[in-house]
Amino acid sequence: MKIGGKHHRTIWPVGSNAVEVIDQTKLPHRFQTMTLRTAADCAEAIREMIVRGAPLIGATAAYGIAFAMRADASDEALDRAHDLLLATRPTAINLRWALKRMCDALRNQPRERRAEIAWREAAAICDEDVETCRTIGLHGLEVLRETAAKKKSAPLNILTHCNAGWLATVDWGTALAPIYMAHDEGIPVHVWVDETRPRNQGASLTAFELGAHGVPHAIIADNAGGHYMQTGEVDLCIVGTDRVTANGDVANKIGTYLKALAAKDNAVPFYVALPSSTIDWSLNCGRDIPIEHRSADELLKMTGRLPDGGLATVEIAAPGSPGANPAFDVTPARLVTGFITERGVCDASEQGLRSLFPI
Amino acid sequence: MKIGGKHHRTIWPVGSNAVEVIDQTKLPHRFQTMTLRTAADCAEAIREMIVRGAPLIGATAAYGIAFAMRADASDEALDRAHDLLLATRPTAINLRWALKRMCDALRNQPRERRAEIAWREAAAICDEDVETCRTIGLHGLEVLRETAAKKKSAPLNILTHCNAGWLATVDWGTALAPIYMAHDEGIPVHVWVDETRPRNQGASLTAFELGAHGVPHAIIADNAGGHYMQTGEVDLCIVGTDRVTANGDVANKIGTYLKALAAKDNAVPFYVALPSSTIDWSLNCGRDIPIEHRSADELLKMTGRLPDGGLATVEIAAPGSPGANPAFDVTPARLVTGFITERGVCDASEQGLRSLFPI
Repeated sequence: MKIGGKHHRTIWPVGSNAVEVIDQTKLPHRFQTMTLRTAADCAEAIREMIVRGAPLIGATAAYGIAFAMRADASDEALDRAHDLLLATRPTAINLRWALKRMCDALRNQPRERRAEIAWREAAAICDEDVETCRTIGLHGLEVLRETAAKKKSAPLNILTHCNAGWLATVDWGTALAPIYMAHDEGIPVHVWVDETRPRNQGASLTAFELGAHGVPHAIIADNAGGHYMQTGEVDLCIVGTDRVTANGDVANKIGTYLKALAAKDNAVPFYVALPSSTIDWSLNCGRDIPIEHRSADELLKMTGRLPDGGLATVEIAAPGSPGANPAFDVTPARLVTGFITERGVCDASEQGLRSLFPI
Repeated sequence: MKIGGKHHRTIWPVGSNAVEVIDQTKLPHRFQTMTLRTAADCAEAIREMIVRGAPLIGATAAYGIAFAMRADASDEALDRAHDLLLATRPTAINLRWALKRMCDALRNQPRERRAEIAWREAAAICDEDVETCRTIGLHGLEVLRETAAKKKSAPLNILTHCNAGWLATVDWGTALAPIYMAHDEGIPVHVWVDETRPRNQGASLTAFELGAHGVPHAIIADNAGGHYMQTGEVDLCIVGTDRVTANGDVANKIGTYLKALAAKDNAVPFYVALPSSTIDWSLNCGRDIPIEHRSADELLKMTGRLPDGGLATVEIAAPGSPGANPAFDVTPARLVTGFITERGVCDASEQGLRSLFPI
C-alpha cells in the first residue's frame, strides 16, 4: 500500500543481510522503520509488537530463521532459532506455521545451502502472503458487492475490530483487503473502526490505513458497536483472526467475541477473513487455544501527541489500581456467518473449512 | 464515603447560598472541589460532567432550582431554570424527575417562601438519595450473599461497567453499594472494573472508589469482560442505569448492552441497581430513549499523569480520523436477571416493576 505516494510493504529485504520493518508501536504518531539483522532482533520485534498481525508475525519469524542460518546453519541453531521465535507470542498460529515451513524447507538440506534457501523461502512466504491477501480481498469483495446490492441506501457500513489491514500482513490485509477493493471500484463504504483497547490498534493503525487510502471511516469506542448494530447502522462486520480451530472457533483480538454476540443479536452478518495458514487443524475447539496475557501497563498508560507535536506517555487510571490484560478472546463458530479465505467463502465449521481445504 | 479518613458526600451545602461538589473530571488525578452558586453553574457542572451519574445529576439540578429561586422566585424564573437544567443532558431520567419534584413543591407556594422551600427540598432529595442507595445496598447484599453461598471457592467475582458508586449518587452508590456492604461484612469480593471508554469512568472513578475503600479489584479493557465470563471468572454483573422504561429496558453507559449479551451467553446473572426515580413510566420501550452523542474529543484525546506528577492531554488516534461518540446504549429487558431497587429485587419487566411500585 502507499504511504505518501510511495509503495510500502510492512517488511522488505535491505541487501541480503537485513530486513526493514515499519515500527508499528510508533504509529500513528510517527512513521519510522527499523532494521532487523538477527533472529533475536526478529523475536524482539514480535514480542514488543514492533510488528504484529498474525500473517506479518509469521513472515518476520521466517526471516528470523533465515538470519539464524546465516550465523550458524547447524540443526541445533535451527532448533534454537525455532524455539526462540515460537516463544515470542502464544496465540497466533501463523507463527508456528511459518516456522514449520522454514524448518521443513531446511531440515534435509546441506548446511552450506541453508542460508540461501532460508532467505528465498522467507521471501516466498512474504510474496505468497501478498497474493493470498489479494485473493481474500477478491472473495470478500463479492460479499461486499452482494450486501451493498441488497441495501437501499448508501453507504455500506462495515464494522471492524483491531487491525487486520495491510499493516497486519505483508500487504493488502485480510479483513480490510475487500474494503479497499470495494472502495476502489466505487462502492460507497464507511467503516466503523473499533478503537481496540488496550493497544488501540483500531484508532492507531486501522484508522491510519483507511485515512491514507481515503476510505471514509469513524473511530468508535469498543463499547459503541452494539449500539450501532441496534440502530441499524452496521451492515456487516469483518475481522481478522490469529487462530481458527478445526471446528471453526475463532481466536482474535480481545473484544471480538462481544461484537460477534451483538451481530448475532441484531442479525448483522459477521465474517472472519483469514489465510489458510491461520487454521489450526490440530485443535478441535477454541477453548484449547492459549490466550496471551500482556502487561497491565498497556491498559494503564497511554501514549499520544502533545500540542507541541512531541510525544508523551501518561498514566490514566486510578493510582495503585491493578489491571488485567488478556490479549485475545475466542468467538464460537456459531456466531460466525462465514470465513473469507484465499480459496473462497465457507461456513464456519469443520465441514466448511474442509470443503475449501480438503485433507 | 471516606476519602483520606474524612467523610464526604458528592454534593454538600456551604452556608445557605452555595453547594460544593467534587470535580469528577479531575479524578483520579486530583481531588478537587468546586463551588456552585447559580442555576447556570449547576447546568454547566452537569453538562461538562463535573458531576455525573443519574442520581447525582438529579440532586445537582435540584440545587440549581434552589439557586434560581434565590435570585428570582417568579414562575417565569422557575420555568427558565427548569428548562435550562433539563436541556443539559438528555438520557438520565432522574434529572427530569428531580426538576419535576422541585417544581411541584414550589408551584403553588408564595414567592417569598420559594427560596427557602427549594433549598429544603433539594436537601431532602439528597438525604433521600443517601437512604435510597443504602437500601439498594441492603437488597443487593442479599443477592451477593446468596451468590457467594452457592460458590465453592472465594472470591466472589463481580463485573461492573462505568461508575455507579458513591460518586454517581450523593453517597453509597447504586451498583457498588452492595459490594461495599459485602466487603464490610467479610464476604471476599473481587471486582472486574470495566475501563469504560471513552471517558474511563471505570478506571478513573470506580477503581478510585474501590481502592479508597480497600475492595480488591482489577481494571480491565471493556473488551475483556466477555473473555472472563467464558472462562468462569465472573460470578455476577451489577451495573447502574440512567433510565429504565416501563417494560424493563435499561439505558446505561455505552457498552452495557455488550456485557449483558455476554452474561446471557454464559449464564452469568446480570443485575441492574436503581432508585425508583430512574424509572420512566412514560416510555414503553428502550428504543424511545434519547441517546446522547458527545464530542469525539472524548475518544480521541486522553488526559493523564506525567512522570513528574503534572497532567497532560495527548491526542491518541490517527491524525485527521473522525470519531463518533454515543454515550449510552439500551440493554433489552430480556438480558437483565433482575432490578435491585430501594424496595427490593424484582424481574426486569413491567409486572416486576409494578410489583414493587404499584400505580
